Amino acid sequence: MNHDYLAKAWGLAKNLSACPLQIGTAESLTGGLVAAAITSVPHSSDYFAGSVVAYSNQLKVELLGVPMDVILHHGAVSRECALAMALGLRRKLSLDVAIATTGIAGPTGATAQKPVGLVWLAVATPTASYACSHHFPGDRAAVTAQTVYTALNFVLDILANEGGPSFN
Amino acid sequence: MNHDYLAKAWGLAKNLSACPLQIGTAESLTGGLVAAAITSVPHSSDYFAGSVVAYSNQLKVELLGVPMDVILHHGAVSRECALAMALGLRRKLSLDVAIATTGIAGPTGATAQKPVGLVWLAVATPTASYACSHHFPGDRAAVTAQTVYTALNFVLDILANEGGPSFN
Repeated sequence: MNHDYLAKAWGLAKNLSACPLQIGTAESLTGGLVAAAITSVPHSSDYFAGSVVAYSNQLKVELLGVPMDVILHHGAVSRECALAMALGLRRKLSLDVAIATTGIAGPTGATAQKPVGLVWLAVATPTASYACSHHFPGDRAAVTAQTVYTALNFVLDILANEGGPSFN
Repeated sequence: MNHDYLAKAWGLAKNLSACPLQIGTAESLTGGLVAAAITSVPHSSDYFAGSVVAYSNQLKVELLGVPMDVILHHGAVSRECALAMALGLRRKLSLDVAIATTGIAGPTGATAQKPVGLVWLAVATPTASYACSHHFPGDRAAVTAQTVYTALNFVLDILANEGGPSFN
């Protein structure tokens, strides 16, 4: 465990408690840690519906509706797959907001084009979808912890920017 | 975060790395932390397929196939619901072994019959299903962390007892 980034993520998740929306996560490399950060907050059941941890490509297809073509052509660690995971979860669970994480936590799984630490994040909201990539340093635990923290920052920024009278 | 029990859980999860079976988790109060412990281990994608974090009752029904009757008659925190979550996930994801957690992490949600800290765990394997309950002390983080640790202990004990030439 990488306590620094995880502790920061757990703190950050409290900022979602003002959220009037239904939120869920579709997680690959983070393995459920984004959901765990969100649900660590008392009363999070008011705005957190659930999560799918789709570690295998098969589950990405079966549970999240990611087209197999996306995985075959772009790989599971890609902008296209992250967006398909977020959009698929949002539709499947009838959520307002879905957060998706996919990346290479290591120690294996890297290629020349996709090194250990490469991560794609996506967020789907009622009005738009967003994706961004990062290349985090460190070992498996460090990469995962930085991803959890960054994913929560990403969705909080998006919700603040999309803003509305009910969530600023 | 409750680092003591979580650190112990993260350590315990390494013992699954000898497992030749496909494993998944159906989590309520643990919010993805059992999956996170399992996937913290390098190469866990060899035996971990994925997880459903079904925080809402609706998702327990829709994603895990828990009969609404079970929730209405026994509640979401019950032996019956824990078993239905494990059996439902095992069937849905075509897993060998499914681990389910449901309980009352607090600070709200308790009743006279079901206090904060009450937890039901279930495990479904190719040959049987198992359930047990615990009443853990402490706050939300403490209850959750003890549940993660105990769930991993529970499934490791079961796999060791069911044993076989390939997993002892």
